[in-house]
Amino acid sequence: MHAPQVPESSRIRFRCKARTRWSDEDNQNVLNNAVYMTLLEEARHAYFQKLGLLDGRHFPFLLAQTNIRFVAPGKGGVEVELEVITTRLGTSSVEQSYRVRDGAAVWCEAQAVLVIYDPVRKRSAPMAPSFRQAVEAFEGLA
Amino acid sequence: MHAPQVPESSRIRFRCKARTRWSDEDNQNVLNNAVYMTLLEEARHAYFQKLGLLDGRHFPFLLAQTNIRFVAPGKGGVEVELEVITTRLGTSSVEQSYRVRDGAAVWCEAQAVLVIYDPVRKRSAPMAPSFRQAVEAFEGLA
Amino acid sequence: MHAPQVPESSRIRFRCKARTRWSDEDNQNVLNNAVYMTLLEEARHAYFQKLGLLDGRHFPFLLAQTNIRFVAPGKGGVEVELEVITTRLGTSSVEQSYRVRDGAAVWCEAQAVLVIYDPVRKRSAPMAPSFRQAVEAFEGLA
Amino acid sequence: MHAPQVPESSRIRFRCKARTRWSDEDNQNVLNNAVYMTLLEEARHAYFQKLGLLDGRHFPFLLAQTNIRFVAPGKGGVEVELEVITTRLGTSSVEQSYRVRDGAAVWCEAQAVLVIYDPVRKRSAPMAPSFRQAVEAFEGLA
Repeated sequence: MHAPQVPESSRIRFRCKARTRWSDEDNQNVLNNAVYMTLLEEARHAYFQKLGLLDGRHFPFLLAQTNIRFVAPGKGGVEVELEVITTRLGTSSVEQSYRVRDGAAVWCEAQAVLVIYDPVRKRSAPMAPSFRQAVEAFEGLA
Repeated sequence: MHAPQVPESSRIRFRCKARTRWSDEDNQNVLNNAVYMTLLEEARHAYFQKLGLLDGRHFPFLLAQTNIRFVAPGKGGVEVELEVITTRLGTSSVEQSYRVRDGAAVWCEAQAVLVIYDPVRKRSAPMAPSFRQAVEAFEGLA
Repeated sequence: MHAPQVPESSRIRFRCKARTRWSDEDNQNVLNNAVYMTLLEEARHAYFQKLGLLDGRHFPFLLAQTNIRFVAPGKGGVEVELEVITTRLGTSSVEQSYRVRDGAAVWCEAQAVLVIYDPVRKRSAPMAPSFRQAVEAFEGLA
Repeated sequence: MHAPQVPESSRIRFRCKARTRWSDEDNQNVLNNAVYMTLLEEARHAYFQKLGLLDGRHFPFLLAQTNIRFVAPGKGGVEVELEVITTRLGTSSVEQSYRVRDGAAVWCEAQAVLVIYDPVRKRSAPMAPSFRQAVEAFEGLA
């Protein structure tokens, strides 16, 4: 199984913060694995919101796949940094990499494939040129 | 990004059921992605419990990595089938594949790497021979 | 603070089952308090579904208030019984009582006030006569 | 059913902030009711932490009962204020009132009874004088 590929933090342009909750810990006294999915979701939304691509409650994409490597145990009650970078734009897909850290301690690294989605026709749709340009401009992609 | 490799259902020996909750749906009216992690966790525990390897509340493993492909939107209030198969046993690791389905409709497929863990020394530990034998016997692995 | 009033189980006509999840436990090794709200929600929906009053995804009511008494610590991985009884029907409100039990062990008792709600006008609405009759018939209320 | 009694905000000395998550919304597009329990839990822990009464992971109390009134629909992605006040100290119990607000908009009001708990003997215990004094001093209680 291939580990998720995540560029080093110095190359990642977007970061935001989130706070873990006491109840995010499970009976093993560490952040439950499912909570990382929620943190990555929050990071993803903050990223697209910053780029002006999150139109209120209408999400233009679906999560098609995610590969997460759990590096160190997380804890509740911590303000963590969430790093997000778009690494590739396809015809109707977006590949991103993420990192969750508590200061120098990396909790997890992940990759995801998002698919641009038409909720009316309930199927994937080509990426709008404006969407592509906004991401390319932010990330400095060709 | 490689898709998770999951054997076809006819080759998977372990299956169990779980019920999705109404509140497992988010504001996109489908099962929130994080909930799949919870369903896979339930399946994993049921698997090791059936093999007699889950000693009460002491978990002998940690989830090191998981790769999940979301195939079709899930819904709350559904009794789903969860399929689990161990595909490889390492010195201190376990590779598993999973499938979540609502009858013929596959909702997601996933792979995971679990690491045998010593909670006292807080580090990975070699797999106990009894653990290895129990899994090999169940799965018909060499 | 008044404790919730819940009739004894022998007087409650509706019951259903639900399974608690491993991750429903928090770092105190008992069912997290918020999970009870989710279990009561599942019970409430099953109740109205049985009475034919849950029209797909359109919920005719909102939870206005709930009073929950936590009687004994809950655990994950348990199939619990959920008891629901409607104790009073107002012009646009419904009062219910609930009990969550693991066999003879009562985990919690609760009361709630639901308000019949018009989601279009975003305000409370009078209870439809058919709704009132269905509940009265089931519970043997005047 | 009695509504929870919560002093007006000008009389409440403790407040903190929390951020709601996108996935805290359910398929009715509002904050799921169970999430309020989590927010109140976060507020409660922040309160006792500020008073120096939260000894790491050892919680000296259990939630015995809570009465919550849902005032206005909540949303994900909002930084809310959480107000907490202790209104009464018993021999081994603590009564608190809470308010969750988004600026001027009150989302919910609640009361709770906490019981001082001995986790070793698994039963309620008398309140330590130092605990009582810390709360009385903070709240200006006799």
